[in-house]
Amino acid sequence: MSKSLRARDAGLACGKLPAGPRNSITDVPGVRVGHVTLNRDELRTGVTAILPHGGNLYREKPVAAVHVLNGFGKSTGLVQVEELGVIETPLLLTNTLSVGTCATALVRHAIAHNPDIGRETATVNPVVFECNDGFLNDIQALAITEDHAQAALKAASADVAVGAVGAGCGMSTFGFKGGIGTASRVLDLDGKIFHFGVLVLANFGRPGDLRLPDGTVVTPAMAEPAATEKGSIIIIAATDIPLSDRQLQRVIRRSGVGLARLGSFWGHGSGDIALGFSTANILFHDEKAALVDQRVLNENRIDLLFEAMADTTQEAVLDALIAAGPMTGRSGHHRPGLADALNHLRSTKA
Amino acid sequence: MSKSLRARDAGLACGKLPAGPRNSITDVPGVRVGHVTLNRDELRTGVTAILPHGGNLYREKPVAAVHVLNGFGKSTGLVQVEELGVIETPLLLTNTLSVGTCATALVRHAIAHNPDIGRETATVNPVVFECNDGFLNDIQALAITEDHAQAALKAASADVAVGAVGAGCGMSTFGFKGGIGTASRVLDLDGKIFHFGVLVLANFGRPGDLRLPDGTVVTPAMAEPAATEKGSIIIIAATDIPLSDRQLQRVIRRSGVGLARLGSFWGHGSGDIALGFSTANILFHDEKAALVDQRVLNENRIDLLFEAMADTTQEAVLDALIAAGPMTGRSGHHRPGLADALNHLRSTKA
Amino acid sequence: MSKSLRARDAGLACGKLPAGPRNSITDVPGVRVGHVTLNRDELRTGVTAILPHGGNLYREKPVAAVHVLNGFGKSTGLVQVEELGVIETPLLLTNTLSVGTCATALVRHAIAHNPDIGRETATVNPVVFECNDGFLNDIQALAITEDHAQAALKAASADVAVGAVGAGCGMSTFGFKGGIGTASRVLDLDGKIFHFGVLVLANFGRPGDLRLPDGTVVTPAMAEPAATEKGSIIIIAATDIPLSDRQLQRVIRRSGVGLARLGSFWGHGSGDIALGFSTANILFHDEKAALVDQRVLNENRIDLLFEAMADTTQEAVLDALIAAGPMTGRSGHHRPGLADALNHLRSTKA
Amino acid sequence: MSKSLRARDAGLACGKLPAGPRNSITDVPGVRVGHVTLNRDELRTGVTAILPHGGNLYREKPVAAVHVLNGFGKSTGLVQVEELGVIETPLLLTNTLSVGTCATALVRHAIAHNPDIGRETATVNPVVFECNDGFLNDIQALAITEDHAQAALKAASADVAVGAVGAGCGMSTFGFKGGIGTASRVLDLDGKIFHFGVLVLANFGRPGDLRLPDGTVVTPAMAEPAATEKGSIIIIAATDIPLSDRQLQRVIRRSGVGLARLGSFWGHGSGDIALGFSTANILFHDEKAALVDQRVLNENRIDLLFEAMADTTQEAVLDALIAAGPMTGRSGHHRPGLADALNHLRSTKA
Repeated sequence: MSKSLRARDAGLACGKLPAGPRNSITDVPGVRVGHVTLNRDELRTGVTAILPHGGNLYREKPVAAVHVLNGFGKSTGLVQVEELGVIETPLLLTNTLSVGTCATALVRHAIAHNPDIGRETATVNPVVFECNDGFLNDIQALAITEDHAQAALKAASADVAVGAVGAGCGMSTFGFKGGIGTASRVLDLDGKIFHFGVLVLANFGRPGDLRLPDGTVVTPAMAEPAATEKGSIIIIAATDIPLSDRQLQRVIRRSGVGLARLGSFWGHGSGDIALGFSTANILFHDEKAALVDQRVLNENRIDLLFEAMADTTQEAVLDALIAAGPMTGRSGHHRPGLADALNHLRSTKA
Repeated sequence: MSKSLRARDAGLACGKLPAGPRNSITDVPGVRVGHVTLNRDELRTGVTAILPHGGNLYREKPVAAVHVLNGFGKSTGLVQVEELGVIETPLLLTNTLSVGTCATALVRHAIAHNPDIGRETATVNPVVFECNDGFLNDIQALAITEDHAQAALKAASADVAVGAVGAGCGMSTFGFKGGIGTASRVLDLDGKIFHFGVLVLANFGRPGDLRLPDGTVVTPAMAEPAATEKGSIIIIAATDIPLSDRQLQRVIRRSGVGLARLGSFWGHGSGDIALGFSTANILFHDEKAALVDQRVLNENRIDLLFEAMADTTQEAVLDALIAAGPMTGRSGHHRPGLADALNHLRSTKA
Repeated sequence: MSKSLRARDAGLACGKLPAGPRNSITDVPGVRVGHVTLNRDELRTGVTAILPHGGNLYREKPVAAVHVLNGFGKSTGLVQVEELGVIETPLLLTNTLSVGTCATALVRHAIAHNPDIGRETATVNPVVFECNDGFLNDIQALAITEDHAQAALKAASADVAVGAVGAGCGMSTFGFKGGIGTASRVLDLDGKIFHFGVLVLANFGRPGDLRLPDGTVVTPAMAEPAATEKGSIIIIAATDIPLSDRQLQRVIRRSGVGLARLGSFWGHGSGDIALGFSTANILFHDEKAALVDQRVLNENRIDLLFEAMADTTQEAVLDALIAAGPMTGRSGHHRPGLADALNHLRSTKA
Repeated sequence: MSKSLRARDAGLACGKLPAGPRNSITDVPGVRVGHVTLNRDELRTGVTAILPHGGNLYREKPVAAVHVLNGFGKSTGLVQVEELGVIETPLLLTNTLSVGTCATALVRHAIAHNPDIGRETATVNPVVFECNDGFLNDIQALAITEDHAQAALKAASADVAVGAVGAGCGMSTFGFKGGIGTASRVLDLDGKIFHFGVLVLANFGRPGDLRLPDGTVVTPAMAEPAATEKGSIIIIAATDIPLSDRQLQRVIRRSGVGLARLGSFWGHGSGDIALGFSTANILFHDEKAALVDQRVLNENRIDLLFEAMADTTQEAVLDALIAAGPMTGRSGHHRPGLADALNHLRSTKA
């Protein structure tokens, strides 16, 4: 696991449910995350890959759902997820202008593992999410290559680095340095233990709006004046609880609760998009039977997952903020770190 | 079974799949339909009830989905069906201004069978659909009472009367007399036999736009000049194939195909709404287990159901047209019957 | 204006934008609200009417939009609002099982003012919202009559009573007595003054989850143990800023932010539904011109309205909580008042 | 204009409304279309570009809407169009696996014309549509480059080549050779003349399902046995009638009517997606005013556009079928031409 400071280390745990051993989306068995980070010259960007399981995702498709909180965003692949309720590639996160390149990389990755794609069987639906890191990164450079995407896929492991890594390298949140954060919860259903995890790419929120779980408002020193919300946040949720796509959609919709608790109102210019998948419901590409069995949640119990979704979204954003130190990027643009601001705040109070 | 002439008797069968024994929505085991018809003075209206199964629907909720082809309509209860993917009352069909009364009747019906509603357990979501029969019916009279609705529920049986009965009494379609129609198909999945049925309340289509399956255009003599489409059609689909709510939604969306084949373009003023349910996936109100098993369709086979949906929608509308004879109603307004027009057409050709 | 204590009097103002003179939805010129309250024996229920303007709403339809945060609800009329982007009746709020009766009342109200409905012109789409007041009210009594609904419509004025009045009489929120609340903001667009107001029917939230704007969590003494969220909240937003239906939909979506700030996660059993309308964009039923002019917002300015929506939703709920004193209802069920709890909390602190 | 045979030349005109002078989407003033075609070795693919107007699309955004008939598709950019109701790039059509490359090309095209993108202003939302041409084309070759996309943009003119050109090069429809087709209608609103045009990329439909406007079913000789629908169709609609995004969405939804008339039931494996834009409602990226004026359609007239949408979709598909001659492609796969089949059919009849 990354040696970064975590939200919880900084006293920023959210909610009452117990966290998983890593407090990470990879507490859901089988889920892995990989990063490639470009931090040189005017570049502050990267790619983050999320692999729902270790098998062939095109052949064994996890049930999935998407929810668009605010659609000022350029993510790709969502139409088919909505229609069919499954994903069939790993998920890639990157900067806004590199979505096309990462989509092509996923196509090649799928073909490499499934040579029948587009020949004897259907094509493939790459799912790529994005935020705009243009404040710190020279986004016009279109620096991300297909090789970077493939490297992020290969780097995937259960140890998740957080903060200014991967797609999170150049992101900003509430005027602070943002990036990748994660959190998980352990859920007990009739004595059986399940896992629920979230990973965020946090790049949203107006300076001055950030609220900590105890209600404290934290404002970055020397924030850009008159800044409007024009970031974005991507929220990826995973669970080993068997859920239908409709149930998943209801759960991930509660990402909006976590964001609102943090002080966001899902601003106009922010592409706030969530995707969730269950590793406990898999549809087989080559299924032969006419009817298949699925296990789903008794919906009367779903409040537990709503709470987990709100709590982990909130904590994962704080996790990104705490882990992502201060950074200076393109044209000398600068973002302070939340950890420093908290230290200052606490030393002033003491 | 009703002694009415059926579409198939008139040579208007649609598609290639085999019809069920009754060629009716009640070929799906357990489904029953009841009508109450008001045909006196200036009244040409009624209520039609559809019961998905013979048990307590509030306790044993069929998986369901809705699709709005064109939302110029006043049906009620759809929001909760979309959120939860189930229905929990019988379905009532009536005229537009009587939706409120029928909804209240369903509430009382549910309480009568479930005295804990609104006390020890949740409330209930009545689902009522409507079309505007104001051309032939004095719709302002608000003649439908709760008693009529209860009587329609009680009258439910596997024998479905079609034509100018129940909610269909005063309806019009393509300038002809419309009303209630039904059709079914028998579907073979890996050697196992399943049923798929549709019932429509047909009250849509501009005079002159009706196309028979062979391409013939049939125009009512003395149609209202410059008539615009301001009817509506309600399409209810039932099956004993186990489907998820998302799969049902995809299937019933193809009702639009059936309507288009008939010559409709889903006109502006027409509330074109479909609901589908599966009797093979039931959720229990008092479920105690945290996780429940469901069987769903291998989605690679769903084209068969799409075809059945398009075919039965098309044929059920023709069924309503053929069975609903000519009628004179409010203020002497008149609608000819399609059967007469076909006889005339065929005698002219011969 | 009601003499009730308001949220703002109790130090519970939300956000930074200035409130309107009444801090009420009726600060939007032309908007009026009326209540009928049934508080006798085992009854704690009522009807609340909102009239967007003083003219004939069927002839002059305000542009409108709906948003369903969580669809476990039984409101009616939403399908047509989504399709056409207008409302054409006043809005009624009541208890869950009285939606049908109130819908019929709106139909009669529309016919009384428009005798051509269902005869020479189309029918009418009544819009009725609901929450479940069954904890304090004998909801099975179906005590609301059409006369109550008509009386609420007649009682409409710019003075809005808040708290346990109208549809709010028997509602509960976060384990406290809930009900009707309102709030408004004055918005400056290029030096021109506009108004934005919200009215809520608050009946949601688990005991122990309520958060005040300063972060304080307030729990009712002797809350029901293991209570799950099974309430609902209806949020009605009005403005004299000209907005398109899409813009309105985006604005009212932010009601979810206000609810989340209060401690809700939009629980499974809660029908959380918002409707917004603009009095500055009216579509005429008898429009003759083929093309009509509309004024809409430059969307780059919409964050101001998002903020107003979040703030007024949050404050309107607190308004309901502060104004609705303690109440004992059906079967001796009791809800304490937030005002008392705050007084106790503050006296303890002091 | 292309010298290709058109649907209308072959007696396949659809509907009663008059066609425009070119019977093409470019009858809408300002709209231009360009193709790049790759027809060599095992490649049968290409790119088609549609430019809504001759100005800077990022600065002057046409009002737009999308509708997904069946979401088994990989088009990109739809989320933002749904949220904001505008497009801000040209539209590109290509094969499924080349969406990423074309999206990147649109990003570079936008930056070239707007150097402030991702620096002083927001990023850009490229809109790219696709169908799977893998039957005739070696789609795994990923042969489309950014240069091809730029060339298609540069080639745009009011003369639209149809048939096996551009993105249509390798497409199939109802077992025949498919591709690019177009059609237009001239609409009269109160004596003022407007234009409505559609362009399709047709790659859908099961062999044996195609129906001509007169009801004739046409089956390709030697069609693949047991073929399932796994194509797709993209439908782009343009008009100079001022419409709101909601109105546009309602109009393009009727593309489904045109497809159903042709014999399609919007098969499971088909990504059937429509986008419409109005050149008469432009939103300015750098708008300074808080409120802006828009002209929209009196919705009571919208049936005229519904009819135009259904008719032009139907005719544009037939246009593609008639113009796209027979073709042999990858691995010797072959598609016959509809024109030949019609000639044969007619000579047999005669």
